[in-house]
Amino acid sequence: MNAPLVPFGKPRPERADAARNRQILLEAARAMLAEHGAEKVTMDALAERAGVGKGTVFRRFGSRAGIFNALLDDSEGRFQEQVLSGPPPLGPGAAPKQRLIAYGRARIAYLFVHHALVRAALDRNRPAPMGEVSMTLPHFRMLLGRTDVPRRHLDGLALQLTSALEGPLMLYLSREEIARTPEPDAEDPLADSWQELVERVLPG
Amino acid sequence: MNAPLVPFGKPRPERADAARNRQILLEAARAMLAEHGAEKVTMDALAERAGVGKGTVFRRFGSRAGIFNALLDDSEGRFQEQVLSGPPPLGPGAAPKQRLIAYGRARIAYLFVHHALVRAALDRNRPAPMGEVSMTLPHFRMLLGRTDVPRRHLDGLALQLTSALEGPLMLYLSREEIARTPEPDAEDPLADSWQELVERVLPG
Repeated sequence: MNAPLVPFGKPRPERADAARNRQILLEAARAMLAEHGAEKVTMDALAERAGVGKGTVFRRFGSRAGIFNALLDDSEGRFQEQVLSGPPPLGPGAAPKQRLIAYGRARIAYLFVHHALVRAALDRNRPAPMGEVSMTLPHFRMLLGRTDVPRRHLDGLALQLTSALEGPLMLYLSREEIARTPEPDAEDPLADSWQELVERVLPG
Repeated sequence: MNAPLVPFGKPRPERADAARNRQILLEAARAMLAEHGAEKVTMDALAERAGVGKGTVFRRFGSRAGIFNALLDDSEGRFQEQVLSGPPPLGPGAAPKQRLIAYGRARIAYLFVHHALVRAALDRNRPAPMGEVSMTLPHFRMLLGRTDVPRRHLDGLALQLTSALEGPLMLYLSREEIARTPEPDAEDPLADSWQELVERVLPG
């Protein structure tokens, strides 16, 4: 019996060697980004670093922007897992206010680590890819919907709180300011003022 | 008596014809931006549109990015005038909370009108030029300093509120979403949720 010409159902899982190849390429790209900055991550340089042919890099990512998007997808996926099924208050099970605070603290730490990547993926002609890849906006919309915020302000406030959280690291702080900031931890001043902001927006 | 080799004091005012030339170029660039979008604003196209030589455009702006920065400087200057010396509550004389609300409403209207320009000036490798050109961050820092916000959170909250205000139009909303929004006015939902946000952050 022949296989159907147009197979339905789930897409075929990635072959084991293709998946391994993908991980090797992503790790190489991540290392280059950390060591030399986004400008040095090119298709050619990545092929050389990972020890594969240029054709492999091209088939996998399509373009330089495709490298950054794949890296972002990969990192965002790990982050989302913690929010969707990790322990509370970042994961499910805590009150909306506590989840907003915990999400903000975790997200600030994430953006400190990934700021070069996040900025490299910014496209001045389209809204931030973060808006598509990141779960921040829908997550905030869901959490605010379980508070006393009036329905007519839910969309606006979710968007403005998303911006309040991600904007400083995506737009306003310079590389030098980010580098001067100590490793993000409980003492991080941005995380502390995020908590202050949420406590003021959702008192009681 | 000879003029000093290194003249002190105010820079010499722009010659009348140079100033006129500058205005003609800025108006032409603004019209091109509105009609065709940022991609079509190039050094050559601007020279042709304004009916001047390429050398004039080059001496004036230096580069394509220089055109956008000059346009932004010009628009921001007009906006700042209203905040610094216009009538309250946008101008001086009202309570900090009322000035924050009024500034946000005016700024959202400004960003709706200038969003193509603001995004064209975004540089993925540096913080937003808005952070240098715009007065939002220092203005918010000053206004919050006159409220009950604890001193240790002033810098963080000023940065996060700046992002909450400018981020949606600079980062998250697509061109299509901005185009769908009716002319900004008292009914603008983003401006209304900005007011809700400020009233929650500064109750009483």
